Amino acid sequence: MRFLATALLALCLLAPTGPTSEALAQFNRTESIADSYREVAQQLINAALADSAAYGRLTELTDGFGHRFSGSENLERALDWIIEEMEEDGLENVRGESVPVPHWVRGAESLELIAPRRVKLPMLGLGGSVGTPQEGIRAELLVVSSFDELEARSDEARGKIVLLNAPFVSYGQTVTYRVHGAIAAAKAGAVASLIRSVTPFSMRTPHTGQMLYDPSAPQIPHAAITVEDAVMLQRMQERGERIEVLLKMEAQTLPETTSRNVIAEIAGWEHPDEVVVMGGHIDSWDVGTGAMDDGGGSVAAWEALRLMRELGLRPRRTVRVVLWTNEENGLRGALAYRDYHVDELDDHVLAIESDAGVFKPLGFGFTGSTAAYVIIREIGSLLEPIGADDVRRGGGGADIGPIMREGVPGMGLRVDGEKYFWYHHTEADTIEVLDPREMAECVAAMAVMAYVVADLPQRLPR
Amino acid sequence: MRFLATALLALCLLAPTGPTSEALAQFNRTESIADSYREVAQQLINAALADSAAYGRLTELTDGFGHRFSGSENLERALDWIIEEMEEDGLENVRGESVPVPHWVRGAESLELIAPRRVKLPMLGLGGSVGTPQEGIRAELLVVSSFDELEARSDEARGKIVLLNAPFVSYGQTVTYRVHGAIAAAKAGAVASLIRSVTPFSMRTPHTGQMLYDPSAPQIPHAAITVEDAVMLQRMQERGERIEVLLKMEAQTLPETTSRNVIAEIAGWEHPDEVVVMGGHIDSWDVGTGAMDDGGGSVAAWEALRLMRELGLRPRRTVRVVLWTNEENGLRGALAYRDYHVDELDDHVLAIESDAGVFKPLGFGFTGSTAAYVIIREIGSLLEPIGADDVRRGGGGADIGPIMREGVPGMGLRVDGEKYFWYHHTEADTIEVLDPREMAECVAAMAVMAYVVADLPQRLPR
Repeated sequence: MRFLATALLALCLLAPTGPTSEALAQFNRTESIADSYREVAQQLINAALADSAAYGRLTELTDGFGHRFSGSENLERALDWIIEEMEEDGLENVRGESVPVPHWVRGAESLELIAPRRVKLPMLGLGGSVGTPQEGIRAELLVVSSFDELEARSDEARGKIVLLNAPFVSYGQTVTYRVHGAIAAAKAGAVASLIRSVTPFSMRTPHTGQMLYDPSAPQIPHAAITVEDAVMLQRMQERGERIEVLLKMEAQTLPETTSRNVIAEIAGWEHPDEVVVMGGHIDSWDVGTGAMDDGGGSVAAWEALRLMRELGLRPRRTVRVVLWTNEENGLRGALAYRDYHVDELDDHVLAIESDAGVFKPLGFGFTGSTAAYVIIREIGSLLEPIGADDVRRGGGGADIGPIMREGVPGMGLRVDGEKYFWYHHTEADTIEVLDPREMAECVAAMAVMAYVVADLPQRLPR
Repeated sequence: MRFLATALLALCLLAPTGPTSEALAQFNRTESIADSYREVAQQLINAALADSAAYGRLTELTDGFGHRFSGSENLERALDWIIEEMEEDGLENVRGESVPVPHWVRGAESLELIAPRRVKLPMLGLGGSVGTPQEGIRAELLVVSSFDELEARSDEARGKIVLLNAPFVSYGQTVTYRVHGAIAAAKAGAVASLIRSVTPFSMRTPHTGQMLYDPSAPQIPHAAITVEDAVMLQRMQERGERIEVLLKMEAQTLPETTSRNVIAEIAGWEHPDEVVVMGGHIDSWDVGTGAMDDGGGSVAAWEALRLMRELGLRPRRTVRVVLWTNEENGLRGALAYRDYHVDELDDHVLAIESDAGVFKPLGFGFTGSTAAYVIIREIGSLLEPIGADDVRRGGGGADIGPIMREGVPGMGLRVDGEKYFWYHHTEADTIEVLDPREMAECVAAMAVMAYVVADLPQRLPR
């Protein structure tokens, strides 16, 4: 409402320079967007930075429910709470959309170094892994530092537990050892496989995450150990020491269960069927409390919508928050969202995801047409007051990936991710990782971007 | 041997400026020390920095034996190995001096949050604590942030488990909650006590350490939880939530056992009874591998002596490396050293300790007379090439404390300790914390300081 006055005022100010049609044309030119929306953007920024409401809400979520792993009671109880709170916030069309999700449970697990000396090593089984027999798997260890080395030494791997001690290059490059390590190790005849945790920094912290099997090789247990222990075992092997370990994992995959994507909206006043989606994933791994990955992104999107409501801002188009479920070990929420809404995707104007931690925001990464990018960049310039105005080409996210592949323009919130992988998928992913002010800035960035795109006089071009 | 030539050369160079007695006087003036010893100091520095021998040896120690907790087989096997290696190095008077030590064992332990939600919390029992009954202690939790608050709320503490959630100010100030927390909590009627780990940084990492009882209060179990969980529990209490936990600890104190201080020397050629002591403590906590605390200091001192031997340097006085046992939970090694050597302490010229981690060395902290300090500072200037020349007043160490109190001048190696308490007494204290180059610089600093003080024409004044 308040914005309408601003827009009309802008039109009046432009009027003297020519006839109304010209003024309107000028208003619609992309270079005028920033000026037209500067006031409302500043309102949203001010509201987001006025307190630490987002951080407070995330704290309530993570303190109150803990991790939110697919298949857990924690997750479904957290979703119930979120839906209640969203309704109390006065958001519209609040609902859960059912999603069948895998149900993997970790159970008790341990890894003991038996030789050359006995000591328990911190470990985390990897998501989707099978367990070991109850007595565990006790075997000699072979350490390799790459798939190539594994292949070259495959005659040595048979009957052993293989440790894939691949140094961290980047998450994108190194995570293949977590995802595909058990397949490669099993093909070489290994009876179980371990990886060096995928991280650039460790305080003897194991990192879990999803792994895969394929039909070409037997399913063997697959777990992560710490960087420190991986390099120690490598040194032991290089000294010619015989290494023996005992791996015990109760991990198992139970029948699928049901979770929900949670949705809340402010319906557009002019084009309610045209939708700007923004969100994060509400599920987490079963360690820590998933504050960074991705409770923060979820709550930031939710808070961005709540601020619009609080400021009485109703844009031309609908802004829809989606908190996707089961991103971590199945992406079922993202796929279900695409399938439920397949007939509406042509009217999905933009999808915005935050899943890189709500650290200091830098800007956005956008995937879409050049015409749209020019507009998005100009909207991004409204975030200059918080230093989040660096909009680059290329970006998206796992949860908006399926609808982006159907043609929906997508973008991801870019943040200072220096420490993201320190905490990623660990017991240390808690609220303490985040900062209230930085999180508030993320809320501001998402609110401004979503609101302005939803309210543009003309729809963002594809 | 090589040094003698250098000293004679120095005398010759000085001779033209006056008669021999004046030249000698000048040689003995403190301002000439640096010039006299510059060449040999550079030899020691070059030798220390030529390779990563010290880091390699520390890695062998920590990989090979793991932690070295008092009473453990690990420790005694490590000491056997060190003695063998020192003999192979050609060090002199290599021996172990028996020390009776306490024998505390941790056993299995766990802490479970029962209400408001159930989750296991990472924890470490504190050294010397009693255990719980086998079924554990299940009780309501009271969180306080200081001893003052505990006293003010002592009527609420009765029958509860008390969490002392004291923010980290400095190790020296905050460690009192670890050391004396159980006494204060028991006096208030608590059935067990927890502390927030004493650290400025956490990756959900509990920190162990020594604690005390006294006769004024019952002995109750005492354990550390992580910073993240301590502040979470505080928030829960502030929200008015009832908090209940279940603490299980098998900790017990067994009969005392025997360990050893390990000693090795290069005997002085002129005054073999005058001794410069240098060392660190070879015991560690029973978590991690004690690479930083204080395997590194121990090996650095040992390597400093080995380099003298390798370079054929035999100083006027004896340089003695002492690897003290049981620093962590008793200081029995330090006390035993004092008692065994009580008759020699008048001839202990200087004691040098490294127990702050062999990080980038900055210099030394010296406690002794001003006359001695002037000399030590000048010797310190020889470490300018490695930036370790900042010698300050005040310094020492836990293990040299007992002999310093008998009048022996003492000093501690000063290092860049920014991250020391991140790792202190945790599972993350491993070789990966240290850097080969920085450790080599520590070796150089200790070697130069010990050698020059031991070789000075005149004994360091008291």
